[in-house]
Amino acid sequence: MARIDGRTPDQLRPVTLTRKWLDHAEGSVLVEFGKTRVLCAASVTEGVPRWRKGSGLGWVSAEYAMLPRSTNTRSDRESVKGKIGGRTHEISRLIGRSLRAVIDYKALGENTILLDCDVLQADGGTRTAAITGAYVALADAVSYLRERKLLKSEPLTGTVAAVSVGIIDGAPMLDLCYEEDVRAETDMNLVITGDGKFIEVQGTAEGAPFDRAELDSLLSLGLAGCADLTKLQQEALGR
Amino acid sequence: MARIDGRTPDQLRPVTLTRKWLDHAEGSVLVEFGKTRVLCAASVTEGVPRWRKGSGLGWVSAEYAMLPRSTNTRSDRESVKGKIGGRTHEISRLIGRSLRAVIDYKALGENTILLDCDVLQADGGTRTAAITGAYVALADAVSYLRERKLLKSEPLTGTVAAVSVGIIDGAPMLDLCYEEDVRAETDMNLVITGDGKFIEVQGTAEGAPFDRAELDSLLSLGLAGCADLTKLQQEALGR
Amino acid sequence: MARIDGRTPDQLRPVTLTRKWLDHAEGSVLVEFGKTRVLCAASVTEGVPRWRKGSGLGWVSAEYAMLPRSTNTRSDRESVKGKIGGRTHEISRLIGRSLRAVIDYKALGENTILLDCDVLQADGGTRTAAITGAYVALADAVSYLRERKLLKSEPLTGTVAAVSVGIIDGAPMLDLCYEEDVRAETDMNLVITGDGKFIEVQGTAEGAPFDRAELDSLLSLGLAGCADLTKLQQEALGR
Amino acid sequence: MARIDGRTPDQLRPVTLTRKWLDHAEGSVLVEFGKTRVLCAASVTEGVPRWRKGSGLGWVSAEYAMLPRSTNTRSDRESVKGKIGGRTHEISRLIGRSLRAVIDYKALGENTILLDCDVLQADGGTRTAAITGAYVALADAVSYLRERKLLKSEPLTGTVAAVSVGIIDGAPMLDLCYEEDVRAETDMNLVITGDGKFIEVQGTAEGAPFDRAELDSLLSLGLAGCADLTKLQQEALGR
Amino acid sequence: MARIDGRTPDQLRPVTLTRKWLDHAEGSVLVEFGKTRVLCAASVTEGVPRWRKGSGLGWVSAEYAMLPRSTNTRSDRESVKGKIGGRTHEISRLIGRSLRAVIDYKALGENTILLDCDVLQADGGTRTAAITGAYVALADAVSYLRERKLLKSEPLTGTVAAVSVGIIDGAPMLDLCYEEDVRAETDMNLVITGDGKFIEVQGTAEGAPFDRAELDSLLSLGLAGCADLTKLQQEALGR
Amino acid sequence: MARIDGRTPDQLRPVTLTRKWLDHAEGSVLVEFGKTRVLCAASVTEGVPRWRKGSGLGWVSAEYAMLPRSTNTRSDRESVKGKIGGRTHEISRLIGRSLRAVIDYKALGENTILLDCDVLQADGGTRTAAITGAYVALADAVSYLRERKLLKSEPLTGTVAAVSVGIIDGAPMLDLCYEEDVRAETDMNLVITGDGKFIEVQGTAEGAPFDRAELDSLLSLGLAGCADLTKLQQEALGR
Repeated sequence: MARIDGRTPDQLRPVTLTRKWLDHAEGSVLVEFGKTRVLCAASVTEGVPRWRKGSGLGWVSAEYAMLPRSTNTRSDRESVKGKIGGRTHEISRLIGRSLRAVIDYKALGENTILLDCDVLQADGGTRTAAITGAYVALADAVSYLRERKLLKSEPLTGTVAAVSVGIIDGAPMLDLCYEEDVRAETDMNLVITGDGKFIEVQGTAEGAPFDRAELDSLLSLGLAGCADLTKLQQEALGR
Repeated sequence: MARIDGRTPDQLRPVTLTRKWLDHAEGSVLVEFGKTRVLCAASVTEGVPRWRKGSGLGWVSAEYAMLPRSTNTRSDRESVKGKIGGRTHEISRLIGRSLRAVIDYKALGENTILLDCDVLQADGGTRTAAITGAYVALADAVSYLRERKLLKSEPLTGTVAAVSVGIIDGAPMLDLCYEEDVRAETDMNLVITGDGKFIEVQGTAEGAPFDRAELDSLLSLGLAGCADLTKLQQEALGR
Repeated sequence: MARIDGRTPDQLRPVTLTRKWLDHAEGSVLVEFGKTRVLCAASVTEGVPRWRKGSGLGWVSAEYAMLPRSTNTRSDRESVKGKIGGRTHEISRLIGRSLRAVIDYKALGENTILLDCDVLQADGGTRTAAITGAYVALADAVSYLRERKLLKSEPLTGTVAAVSVGIIDGAPMLDLCYEEDVRAETDMNLVITGDGKFIEVQGTAEGAPFDRAELDSLLSLGLAGCADLTKLQQEALGR
Repeated sequence: MARIDGRTPDQLRPVTLTRKWLDHAEGSVLVEFGKTRVLCAASVTEGVPRWRKGSGLGWVSAEYAMLPRSTNTRSDRESVKGKIGGRTHEISRLIGRSLRAVIDYKALGENTILLDCDVLQADGGTRTAAITGAYVALADAVSYLRERKLLKSEPLTGTVAAVSVGIIDGAPMLDLCYEEDVRAETDMNLVITGDGKFIEVQGTAEGAPFDRAELDSLLSLGLAGCADLTKLQQEALGR
Repeated sequence: MARIDGRTPDQLRPVTLTRKWLDHAEGSVLVEFGKTRVLCAASVTEGVPRWRKGSGLGWVSAEYAMLPRSTNTRSDRESVKGKIGGRTHEISRLIGRSLRAVIDYKALGENTILLDCDVLQADGGTRTAAITGAYVALADAVSYLRERKLLKSEPLTGTVAAVSVGIIDGAPMLDLCYEEDVRAETDMNLVITGDGKFIEVQGTAEGAPFDRAELDSLLSLGLAGCADLTKLQQEALGR
Repeated sequence: MARIDGRTPDQLRPVTLTRKWLDHAEGSVLVEFGKTRVLCAASVTEGVPRWRKGSGLGWVSAEYAMLPRSTNTRSDRESVKGKIGGRTHEISRLIGRSLRAVIDYKALGENTILLDCDVLQADGGTRTAAITGAYVALADAVSYLRERKLLKSEPLTGTVAAVSVGIIDGAPMLDLCYEEDVRAETDMNLVITGDGKFIEVQGTAEGAPFDRAELDSLLSLGLAGCADLTKLQQEALGR
């Protein structure tokens, strides 16, 4: 069965990771999954939030946002509305959790790395692109700290990538674009480490509930997709 | 391995569903999972939100909140802080999605049912208790509409229950209380229909990432737990 | 003249005070005045707000709120609206003032007791029920401090109860339910100590202004009602 | 016993009511109770708020606010803080209720009069000065409507004035200035019609609770003070 | 060509500067430019904002606001709307910058002077009236500090006044009233020191863009107008 | 005197205007003034804001914002803070006014064009870069409307560009980068039409006030700079 853009069901969109897209940030990546384009900037600050002071532990968190015209129809700015929507909160929290899963707080010491993931253009899979790109920006921010000898030891305990999978017309598909996402009966975001373990599994039946066999095939698809993304991350980082 | 409260790994806490706890609401349930106590109130209004008017379709949504002293240490009111936190948004959206998965909008007609899930006391699993209780309140609100002949046909396409599962000291456990939740390496919330299909799978590695075998055992545990909860819901509804 | 629910003009609704309704709070009471049901939770924290630090004096305050479906027609959550309404503020302040009137700050020492009064179901008189219940929760919170030897001396200088009175069809009535409240020409809330002195007198002409004779008869009715409530509080506290 | 400013216990501060202080407003009064200075502006708009449309009834409401430097120590602007405090809400509601008590909505027709009471300088009794001045601005706004033949009949059913009374060192006093207000054991605001009936009675024990005899003497003092204020209002209005 | 109010093109409206209009503020001026009436209050506080602590430097800032009924048609309160509009922000910042231009922070020492400029009545030119009046209030606040020997040396390095100019029907005019302002093709606000130098030049083409010759004639008009205002300020200050 | 980056005083930084940087927006430009990088997106919607409906006139407005890590040190998101700062408001309003100066509302018909100017990287002159880029995006949005025959006639009455000028160490300079901007005694933003007329003149003395001769030299510098920018805009648009 042909996909809208001619891909096979288990094929990623063209993915690019452009490092050092910004001059000021300690780490920055423009990540593209097809037309989806997310600017990930890592900001390093010495010290940690108040509730963590004196613990000797570092902190990593993330904020996600969409530019108003990243989407097909313009959406109002959350700064103008005066509050952040539920979806934004949820994705910011997801990105933060995903990155923290590969961080050793002790090794990081009392430093904070904040990842800003701003969607410049949205065509489905913005949160998974954000996580995949943010990991690379995070790695650069860690290098920045390492070069300045501000680390106790290596804080990165692994790598992390993310991809969406879904069931469309009964068939499991990898890395949905917006048009596919809208039609999907089930939509799942998987955050997976470089050695193939799960950090997050978030599956939602948008239409009919899914059975265990369908769930299994989605998990397999996602594991393979994240393995590919991991390779692209390593290449981008010159490892 | 014994659990804090003496349960076996696959055992639910004592669950009670007290219907008609409120006099005004079209459906209401006080649901208890052990010490966790959530008041679920279903409010029926004729008409639908503006963006849905004239479609002939109904709407179901939910709002979740915690009383300030539901927790061990008092938390500030979100109304006083002037904004709703990320976690609250996320859970409200989850409850709404879970209930909408068993609703036929056409059959509901242009009616709205809003589920308020207010946590009176929190001891872990508040979101899964809320979904389990809210389904029963929703069913009562549907009956209210049915009795007034305001429905086109039967809008409930199934039942829905939810439970948490997690891995503690390497062992999968069902329905975590707060103390267990804090210690869990992996925490997963499962929303499952009465016929054993998945609506939501939300798993998060709080500590070490989990592998596919662990994921499989958690899914099995959750399927069994939700089957038990489904029975309790049916009993409460006198079906 | 018969009242809606068959009471005599000077009769309270059935009042119950259920202590220790919550497991976590240092004091908690579910208070019921007929169908009005308010959950009062007292939270003790060591220390006082910033502006009072170093004074050696304690602090007591209160927050009042209604669950969205406590009322006949659902009201929007103040947390969702992003601001607290005037009525909520006014009642929170009233409850705080009423309780502080029987507190010796010096004896309390630099401790804070915060009373959360959440209306689970509203049928008139929620603020007076809240004060009456909150006093009992406050007394339990004081006992909690006493048992832990955190008090300099006895901070409770008396007891406090509250009741509404009003004029309906020209006749003074005690403890109005919602239906009566709506019809009342004059509505008055009285907060009175156990020894019959006034802490608050808040009377409002909703319809025709009232003369001094009417005011006098309302005051008498309220004094008698609060004497009854004081007895119920003492019984609940096992004094 | 001499008062701070040499007044007798039953004496008002010098009161002035300067009408037409503003050029744009349909009614406006600069009211002074000693150093307390409140600018009351009445704004007339045709039509009523949405919830009242089609009822044939008018509406009157009020907003109270203090300029940041009206007080001895500057307070932050509520517009900058982003929310209105409890005290502001409470007083706005009180002023609105007090004025509505002398309005016949039917005679007013579907017109709205909004009273803005902005405290330019505060020296105690700002809410009672605001009510006393706002009545005069309201009367001018009614005249404005009458002259344009926009009224069905006379909407003013009476006059209204307000004054504070309190107990200081055991002695009842009329119209407290700030310094007295701070020291008062009991503080009471009375809103009274021109024919000596009560619209609002708001008494609060700031220190020791007050007994019924004390309450009686405060009421007498307030009735006399409002009778004086009524005369000043009538003079200002050239009646 | 005659102006609406009979002035010549280079004539100011009647300007009055009433000092010490308030009893509490360290400096206060009621400034009137024709019907435009702004109350300027200077509040002195020892210490500076957090970001400036320990620098040995003082701080001056300003807040501008309009009373809801200062305008012909009532506007909603920004405190009620819960946020400050763009225009308010912009003018507050302009006033602050203008005053800081004549302040030597070192001489001021770690003291803060905050200028509140509240528009009681608006008839065009509120921001320029505010700056002109605020300077006088600032000078009084500086005197207050000087008398208390809280200054290191003289912090005022000059004087500052402001005026609007505009092009109406092709002709440059000084100090526009509201009716003129609405019709102006170009609107310019000039903030100028006592010795004729520019602090701010803010010109906007409301209709047709303006050429360099027009710009030149507006600058000349403004320089002359501010020279007149400077004289009035000096007289008011008794210099 | 050499500038930091080797430019002559009257030389612009390298300017690029990349059209159609986004796939969804009706007009979009990535504008770069040296390291300053602003993404300008034009969104076309049929219809106009409520207050303009039925007038037959169109509307153009703008919103400006900075990504949190566009600057050297990360700034908090305005959406997270819950309100938009004064500077943001001020610049949004400036961009809107500048573009509206070259728009014939009647020719535009009841269509709205909203320009989003999001600063991806900031190195001084973000507002002038935004205006210069936004004009090009606006022109593309107008073409979009023209191609769909949604215009009555040509709405663009001219072109508009903007540049900053300033005085550094007494010498006038064109197009300041961040490091220069910080050091400038006077900072001026000029918005100028393609035929050399002024739309906005905004000059501020950051240090010493400036005299009329200095003002004149700044105006000359800006006129020449905008003439160069106008050429670059025309080239980008292929005119």
